[in-house]
Amino acid sequence: MDHMEYGLEFCEKTLMPIIKNVVDKYIGTSYSIEKKGQGNFVTTVDKKIEQELIDRFQQLVPGSGVIAEETEAQLEQKFNWIIDPIDGTTNFINGLQYAVSVALVYEQPDHILLGVVYNPKDDIWYYACKGKGSYILEKGMVTQLRVRTFPPDEGIVVFGMPYDRRKTGKILDIVQKYYAIASDMKRIGPSSLDICLVASGKAKMYLELDLNLWDISAGILILTEAGGTYVQKGDLYIFGNDDIQNIKGAP
Amino acid sequence: MDHMEYGLEFCEKTLMPIIKNVVDKYIGTSYSIEKKGQGNFVTTVDKKIEQELIDRFQQLVPGSGVIAEETEAQLEQKFNWIIDPIDGTTNFINGLQYAVSVALVYEQPDHILLGVVYNPKDDIWYYACKGKGSYILEKGMVTQLRVRTFPPDEGIVVFGMPYDRRKTGKILDIVQKYYAIASDMKRIGPSSLDICLVASGKAKMYLELDLNLWDISAGILILTEAGGTYVQKGDLYIFGNDDIQNIKGAP
Repeated sequence: MDHMEYGLEFCEKTLMPIIKNVVDKYIGTSYSIEKKGQGNFVTTVDKKIEQELIDRFQQLVPGSGVIAEETEAQLEQKFNWIIDPIDGTTNFINGLQYAVSVALVYEQPDHILLGVVYNPKDDIWYYACKGKGSYILEKGMVTQLRVRTFPPDEGIVVFGMPYDRRKTGKILDIVQKYYAIASDMKRIGPSSLDICLVASGKAKMYLELDLNLWDISAGILILTEAGGTYVQKGDLYIFGNDDIQNIKGAP
Repeated sequence: MDHMEYGLEFCEKTLMPIIKNVVDKYIGTSYSIEKKGQGNFVTTVDKKIEQELIDRFQQLVPGSGVIAEETEAQLEQKFNWIIDPIDGTTNFINGLQYAVSVALVYEQPDHILLGVVYNPKDDIWYYACKGKGSYILEKGMVTQLRVRTFPPDEGIVVFGMPYDRRKTGKILDIVQKYYAIASDMKRIGPSSLDICLVASGKAKMYLELDLNLWDISAGILILTEAGGTYVQKGDLYIFGNDDIQNIKGAP
């Protein structure tokens, strides 16, 4: 992994086949659901995918640590994997799109070397290597990703709904303000795929409160390698192109 | 069309091939965009698909009339087609999912005989015949649709954003109230596909202000034939299963 030259090939030939293999093994098998809170679910499939990904990635990079949604963090000094086995468990349970999100980071969680986001339902892969660009693999074709610039009052703005229901009013105030600079507001999910919509130039921005590392690490690399950026204002994260630094009238 | 026996076969063997043929002819060709208002677009592809569908459906059922989004209504006494050539033009322009929605009605706009909703991007068909059930055709497989019953505080509730920006506050107040009885709130679009999510048992409800006949006619038949229902309260439409008649705490 010292040679970022091979990073994209490592994604395509090693990481993505492992993720595909693990997903194919568990998705479609029966599972039970545990409710962590209103709208906050975890299934036994989440846990099985996570554990097998951890095992296989740690074999792949000996001495690497892990930050994952369903497991206590086991941090190591150099390489760490950041894993969300099923980003969008509520979507998954209800037959809507979900994602597997995997990032490999070096020394610091924000020093992201590789990122892979997989949408198994539509068989779409997004992946990036630091300094080498970000790509979509769909229907056997690989295309480089690039954020897009939109006219001031156009473009789709995507947002998330917070698990913490006390923050519902806050996000909806933000939605109302941003609707003034958007063609439409969308709430699709999960967050890793919403970030990839921005990276793909399909959405202008993505807004969400209270994100976790496993929700965004792979997505952030895919976005920044596509020419995008993000800012954090308190608990609000804004993902977009460079224009998001200077949005008139935005909160 | 007197024999509803043949309605499903008529959808599968006649209507759907015509729609597919017209969509394949125009989607992917270059087009220009006209802005009708903020977030309200029409393209030359919308107009071409609509005109060719009208021509071909009127040849198919001589003497039939038309209510369509981009054309002045030409109503006839017996059979009328209700057509949205591209439901979700903003989605279409930005590379997200859109739909072609076609309904055949008899004497009254709410006496819907046949309904077809096509999602070309994912190649998914929803269709229904009055009294004969509703179906999804996906990856070569036909499955009958059925709405689902959800626990009181679970299930995905889908909503729309009104074109009329003066109503943004109103829909967001509704979103806040319904989030209390939902696992999650989604804003995906277009409306015909959102209604089909409810008919498919993937979503619990769909809420939108100010819908037009072409947005909903095909979807309504697909929903009701799947055991669902809808109510209109002023400018608010609520699509769901029978429970929507008695939602505690709902506006």
